[in-house]
Amino acid sequence: MTATIAITNGTLIDGTGSGPRLNGTILIENGRITSVDAAEIPAGVQVIDAEGQWVLPGIVNGNIHLLDGIMMMGVGGVEYLARYEGNLTSVIEEAAQIALAAGQTTVFDTWNATGPVLASRDRIASGEVPGARIFAAGNIVGMGGPFSADFNLRARQVISTTFANRLDELFSTGVGAEDLSMLAAEDIRPIIRNYLARGVDMLKIAVSDHLLPTLGATRGYLTFSERALKVMLEEGRAAGVPTLAHIQSVEALEISVELGFDVIIHSTLTGQVAIPQATIDKILEKGIYCGVQSVNAAYQSLLEQIQHPFTLYGGGVHIENEQRLIAAGASIMLGTDAGCTSHDVLTDQHGHGDLNRPWTLGTDHVAWGQALIEKGMSHLQVIESSTRIPAEAYGKSADIGTLEVGKFGDVLVLGSDPLDDITALLDVTTVVKAGEVVDRAALPLQPLASVPIPGDPS
Amino acid sequence: MTATIAITNGTLIDGTGSGPRLNGTILIENGRITSVDAAEIPAGVQVIDAEGQWVLPGIVNGNIHLLDGIMMMGVGGVEYLARYEGNLTSVIEEAAQIALAAGQTTVFDTWNATGPVLASRDRIASGEVPGARIFAAGNIVGMGGPFSADFNLRARQVISTTFANRLDELFSTGVGAEDLSMLAAEDIRPIIRNYLARGVDMLKIAVSDHLLPTLGATRGYLTFSERALKVMLEEGRAAGVPTLAHIQSVEALEISVELGFDVIIHSTLTGQVAIPQATIDKILEKGIYCGVQSVNAAYQSLLEQIQHPFTLYGGGVHIENEQRLIAAGASIMLGTDAGCTSHDVLTDQHGHGDLNRPWTLGTDHVAWGQALIEKGMSHLQVIESSTRIPAEAYGKSADIGTLEVGKFGDVLVLGSDPLDDITALLDVTTVVKAGEVVDRAALPLQPLASVPIPGDPS
Amino acid sequence: MTATIAITNGTLIDGTGSGPRLNGTILIENGRITSVDAAEIPAGVQVIDAEGQWVLPGIVNGNIHLLDGIMMMGVGGVEYLARYEGNLTSVIEEAAQIALAAGQTTVFDTWNATGPVLASRDRIASGEVPGARIFAAGNIVGMGGPFSADFNLRARQVISTTFANRLDELFSTGVGAEDLSMLAAEDIRPIIRNYLARGVDMLKIAVSDHLLPTLGATRGYLTFSERALKVMLEEGRAAGVPTLAHIQSVEALEISVELGFDVIIHSTLTGQVAIPQATIDKILEKGIYCGVQSVNAAYQSLLEQIQHPFTLYGGGVHIENEQRLIAAGASIMLGTDAGCTSHDVLTDQHGHGDLNRPWTLGTDHVAWGQALIEKGMSHLQVIESSTRIPAEAYGKSADIGTLEVGKFGDVLVLGSDPLDDITALLDVTTVVKAGEVVDRAALPLQPLASVPIPGDPS
Amino acid sequence: MTATIAITNGTLIDGTGSGPRLNGTILIENGRITSVDAAEIPAGVQVIDAEGQWVLPGIVNGNIHLLDGIMMMGVGGVEYLARYEGNLTSVIEEAAQIALAAGQTTVFDTWNATGPVLASRDRIASGEVPGARIFAAGNIVGMGGPFSADFNLRARQVISTTFANRLDELFSTGVGAEDLSMLAAEDIRPIIRNYLARGVDMLKIAVSDHLLPTLGATRGYLTFSERALKVMLEEGRAAGVPTLAHIQSVEALEISVELGFDVIIHSTLTGQVAIPQATIDKILEKGIYCGVQSVNAAYQSLLEQIQHPFTLYGGGVHIENEQRLIAAGASIMLGTDAGCTSHDVLTDQHGHGDLNRPWTLGTDHVAWGQALIEKGMSHLQVIESSTRIPAEAYGKSADIGTLEVGKFGDVLVLGSDPLDDITALLDVTTVVKAGEVVDRAALPLQPLASVPIPGDPS
Repeated sequence: MTATIAITNGTLIDGTGSGPRLNGTILIENGRITSVDAAEIPAGVQVIDAEGQWVLPGIVNGNIHLLDGIMMMGVGGVEYLARYEGNLTSVIEEAAQIALAAGQTTVFDTWNATGPVLASRDRIASGEVPGARIFAAGNIVGMGGPFSADFNLRARQVISTTFANRLDELFSTGVGAEDLSMLAAEDIRPIIRNYLARGVDMLKIAVSDHLLPTLGATRGYLTFSERALKVMLEEGRAAGVPTLAHIQSVEALEISVELGFDVIIHSTLTGQVAIPQATIDKILEKGIYCGVQSVNAAYQSLLEQIQHPFTLYGGGVHIENEQRLIAAGASIMLGTDAGCTSHDVLTDQHGHGDLNRPWTLGTDHVAWGQALIEKGMSHLQVIESSTRIPAEAYGKSADIGTLEVGKFGDVLVLGSDPLDDITALLDVTTVVKAGEVVDRAALPLQPLASVPIPGDPS
Repeated sequence: MTATIAITNGTLIDGTGSGPRLNGTILIENGRITSVDAAEIPAGVQVIDAEGQWVLPGIVNGNIHLLDGIMMMGVGGVEYLARYEGNLTSVIEEAAQIALAAGQTTVFDTWNATGPVLASRDRIASGEVPGARIFAAGNIVGMGGPFSADFNLRARQVISTTFANRLDELFSTGVGAEDLSMLAAEDIRPIIRNYLARGVDMLKIAVSDHLLPTLGATRGYLTFSERALKVMLEEGRAAGVPTLAHIQSVEALEISVELGFDVIIHSTLTGQVAIPQATIDKILEKGIYCGVQSVNAAYQSLLEQIQHPFTLYGGGVHIENEQRLIAAGASIMLGTDAGCTSHDVLTDQHGHGDLNRPWTLGTDHVAWGQALIEKGMSHLQVIESSTRIPAEAYGKSADIGTLEVGKFGDVLVLGSDPLDDITALLDVTTVVKAGEVVDRAALPLQPLASVPIPGDPS
Repeated sequence: MTATIAITNGTLIDGTGSGPRLNGTILIENGRITSVDAAEIPAGVQVIDAEGQWVLPGIVNGNIHLLDGIMMMGVGGVEYLARYEGNLTSVIEEAAQIALAAGQTTVFDTWNATGPVLASRDRIASGEVPGARIFAAGNIVGMGGPFSADFNLRARQVISTTFANRLDELFSTGVGAEDLSMLAAEDIRPIIRNYLARGVDMLKIAVSDHLLPTLGATRGYLTFSERALKVMLEEGRAAGVPTLAHIQSVEALEISVELGFDVIIHSTLTGQVAIPQATIDKILEKGIYCGVQSVNAAYQSLLEQIQHPFTLYGGGVHIENEQRLIAAGASIMLGTDAGCTSHDVLTDQHGHGDLNRPWTLGTDHVAWGQALIEKGMSHLQVIESSTRIPAEAYGKSADIGTLEVGKFGDVLVLGSDPLDDITALLDVTTVVKAGEVVDRAALPLQPLASVPIPGDPS
Repeated sequence: MTATIAITNGTLIDGTGSGPRLNGTILIENGRITSVDAAEIPAGVQVIDAEGQWVLPGIVNGNIHLLDGIMMMGVGGVEYLARYEGNLTSVIEEAAQIALAAGQTTVFDTWNATGPVLASRDRIASGEVPGARIFAAGNIVGMGGPFSADFNLRARQVISTTFANRLDELFSTGVGAEDLSMLAAEDIRPIIRNYLARGVDMLKIAVSDHLLPTLGATRGYLTFSERALKVMLEEGRAAGVPTLAHIQSVEALEISVELGFDVIIHSTLTGQVAIPQATIDKILEKGIYCGVQSVNAAYQSLLEQIQHPFTLYGGGVHIENEQRLIAAGASIMLGTDAGCTSHDVLTDQHGHGDLNRPWTLGTDHVAWGQALIEKGMSHLQVIESSTRIPAEAYGKSADIGTLEVGKFGDVLVLGSDPLDDITALLDVTTVVKAGEVVDRAALPLQPLASVPIPGDPS
């Protein structure tokens, strides 16, 4: 990581919220930016000429699940887990490579199998394998595994209990609904402390339940008492990790804001009840970061047409909530729930090549940008929300999120102007991560889940 | 109701906790007790000679569901509701008559279809039909109807949506999970006020969820935030009705105690986690009444043998919880969840004539007494718990619960000594309700659910 | 039944296939037609002046299920049976009254609960209650009851086994799949003989399986070996009843034709495989009657739009099969599978007042006529197929099917011309059954299933 | 395959039905037996001294499914297929190696994914990989794939349709229920001819349905008309392959015997109806071979205790059927339905090391022997039924089944006497296949399904 790179002649959109700046030359040495307006380019440096191109910070995706979580709530998750068990890190790394090739240099995985995602995080961090930089929460505290009511309880009718339990344990990691929800608040403390000691990067808590796949979306419960939430927040803060709230009702949102979580994931998912204005005010006052999982109009229309169970989540009051948060100037952060969907599930859903699908990693941030623009964000704000804001939300501003001296050399070069058309984010010419040019064509190195299953003799 | 009755020569166990008293003569005039040690019997009075018999206050059952609620969580509820829809008051009255014939002169129905149960309550109160005196909570606030995840969501796969929705609305009465759980606390207030205006006698709130039939018993959620609970309690208190908490975890119990609910229904159902001693102390300190749904050893053994889903509820830590509450001297009240189970469901379960079955109205209080004695209560305490204590719990001491002057003339005469053997409660010779001798042989007047379905031509 | 009736001045369409005849006067004495061209009307006779009207034989519906069978394959059958158990004859009679009021003076019920349908048949035959004349097959031999895989196996997950088994026995009557399909051919004989001795009017056999509701419509099995079928046919013929085949594949049809069944019910339901021409030739050669359950284009389009599971049954190759049978001149008989659908199920399906719905008794024969005309039948043929042909199919020509001397005085008078527009069949002015004018406005006498469920106090 | 082997000094049980013979020396040259009583051993020959041991023909298992078919009817099949898709030949070969190591030198796979099983057959035949010699039927004609009603229809609720359909097609191979059961007999002919051209070794036909996993075992249908069966048999005979019938009712058995199938698989599975004596007589008269899947008493008792769905199949009338076939002297052939069960499913079922479990390949033939002895077979007959008889049944007597000159050198050497205790079949000292000593310790070469799933980082 000692090579030096210069990116020259491009139009800089540096993520700070400033307007575009012409002819900036960025210098990256030992992985970090040493200049953003270098007058001279040292000899022997690798030069990337961005003449007529646009230069942005690497995308920071604040909410994804590298092993595809959306899929695990519906059909297909069962076979995905059976197929890749024992090899989950390969799929996680495939996902991180797909993200990186698309310009997402950093991803925050806010739910996943803890062991595998931390292992892959470390392998990527050490340079053993390429991929987007991963920060990982592991399980959402209070949520069960993939074969529980939180995802696909019904699958247990057709799979072995031994397999189901093993996977549920792998995912719930001792901090699932069944581990915690019956306990008194203080009995939860040592379990959380123990969990944090595993080295997760964030503490994400199921303030609301996650029973949607089993019960539908018409009711919302609280997983924990406020007393229990306080205990967990104390532990998270003591461990120095950002705290994230999973919510799906206005009371859960209100409690999360009140208790001062750092980030609210899918902050606009409040059933079909509008967020009270007082709550929005408090979010701004407290400087809480808002994850928003937005669906663009084209895809929302498809969901409605096929009566998809997620229709209400992207539509209805959700839309107003998004518009009001944008108008209020909340700190909105890119987050998509995208992951490495299996090839078969995409075939089922006619999803191959569908750029509007919000959950397809690699194009997810573009569909998200479109959706936010439809709801009132400017193009420039979309770029901030996809770079600087998630970095701040997770306390990573020292390293990522803008093109500023001292930060990692994570750079995205585009062939067309994203301030004119946000789909320019798809027109990637170069991705640099920590000062190294990404060999995009080679990624993912060994695709498994994103390509057709190898055939048996027929 | 103007006849005068004298019950003479019996051994009085008056419900106050005093030991048995010989040769008391009770005089009841205009429905109320005017003497408990009358020296002389006025002329023209109807005399019940209780020589060699035992005279108790009428049993007060603090927790039943006249339309059988236990059944609605398993098989059989679907056909029960289909069969008796349009005629639910008849089944409710059948149940109230079965209870009365067994000596339960007052029952507190803590979950039922609000409209029908209030209509039957009023018909019985006015003397239009016989039956145990009913006080009713209607729906448990925050809980859905019989075809929701709170009871039998799966039934919707085979019944018409029109039928399912109509019944769900009849039961949830606008205060179900889907009506309330997505709302902000203050938005709940007018809905509760409105609900109380219907004339329910108690306000029962789902502090815990009731998802057990759909998810199993391994996790517990909170239906409402504390803020929302406080709003509801304010409204209940303003309306002057007792407040009841449905709980199934230690945190839900703790919150309920903290907030000062009057009665905790099934207070020992805390998953498999022991109630913290501090919580027990607070229960006693605050004088909170504890409903306990106990299973006797014989039936518990049967549940375990057939791996019944309710096994853990009657067993495990639940048993210790009961023992500790008894030992601590908590105010424990009779409550059984019994109802008018359908004849077919009892046939399925080999339940006809099974005196240990806790959910068969009419024998439920006896199985309950056995269960409590097994866990450490004295026989005399069982009688208090089945008479005076529930009356106090619900603020009805002025009228019921003991054999004291001024109270309703609700009297149970037994042919053998319940202080010797609690099954003497089955040896009923006479039941008097509000000064009128109950024609026990005639009850239920027109049995529907408790007898075989009439046959079609075969 | 001794009154004499004269129907005068109408245009006669007598069911024989002759064209319309003007000014015929029909005389009915003691329930039977004594003249169709009476020159003089005896004194004291009740005269119905059909001036400007059309006079037809009463409609003969060759395939209905008075307790609605279609519904029992989907949602709603469960609650219907629970609600009306013990009272099934009332619903059967309600259905027969709805049919009669619409001009269906005779119906052939080819599947139903044997005991109830025979009881209602007899009550109507004796004049105890009004209604269409019923001939009944009872169970389809080889088919299980309403809670078996032939209808709604899934319902057993939510209803009591005691209820499920009792109803299954009531319907399968000892000749269900589980009674017979494991037996050797000769062991079936005494069971069939016994069944016929109950007095059923037809012997209907499941040549094909009826697993469609559980397995979908993509495969077809044979319930019995040919050897077993022969045994059953021998018994049916010995008992002098018509023999009916339930088929749903070309092989089942071929076998049924080969063995010489009298009637093939839904003869065109051969999966998506065209009936071989040789089989059609044999049907004509042998004079086998073809039941056809046709769906008109408007309703077929609706089925396709909502992706109804019955879409393929009314559409695809089925349509060609119908066209080819019509073109070949087969003896096609009215049959609709209609029954007394519950009000709730119709609400679910937006079916109230939908004249195209093929399964709503009372308008079913009109939708059927439309469907057959769309496939090539003439209006006059539709009338023959709805009167004379089903009478012949079932060997009842001596009594019903045409306006000829000696037959029952079953007459339908229409206010407009059915040869011009078949929906004239809805324009009924008078129905006469066995010489008695039907009080159409009074029918059904006590509606149960076809009206909203009575409400409980709300 | 040119080495010469001599097996000396053992006690020969040669499979012909003759009693044991002492001190036989078997000579195998170029893979085939050249002497069974060699006086002299040529120089340079590999000598296996079987002094004090017993020498039998290699076991010939007449009915197994290398990919475990039993499992696919219950839980676990879903994850098994997902996990090994694209690699099915590896699992098939693992199974064939487990079988071979246990002394099963030849197996007849009567249902499996056609492409993979034929590929593995060929790889083993060519010597590319070790394993039991495979003869394979591919699909059972008329039966659907693993995600159809024939196995696990319910799985489709949780897996992707793309995956489900691909696997169903892989297994049903164009001759499934949905391909054939709606067709007229003659339309089936070219499809079967085409299927046979793929090179399957046997033609197995679903005379009975295989709906048991979806419908339970209480009813039995015929998949094909006799006419269709005749067409298929004609084609099978023309192709020179043995014909096998899958039956599960007396009528299906009767039809199969009548039509002259070569082998009846699980010939005693006739519901709970005894096989008529006349049918047994005909089986003997026609020399039809009877597959029997027997359960020994210990395992039958376990099945009954846990109320396993297969209880009735191994018990009840089935037992009598087996006893009567044995007593009648029918040609009974070893067949077990065993396969390579997944490690997780065995864990679920506490099946690891359970020698009584009939479906665990490698010990299956021993449990089978025990079961047959319990029902009246002699030890010597068990050995014949496990060697010579299946070879004859499938027309392979020229090559396998006995220790006779000219046959393949397939030899099983045991350390104890199987005529004394049939579990001696587990006491294998040497297995020779086609003259090559099997390296038993090395098999299976690369275990996948029979060992724990490799773990992910935890």
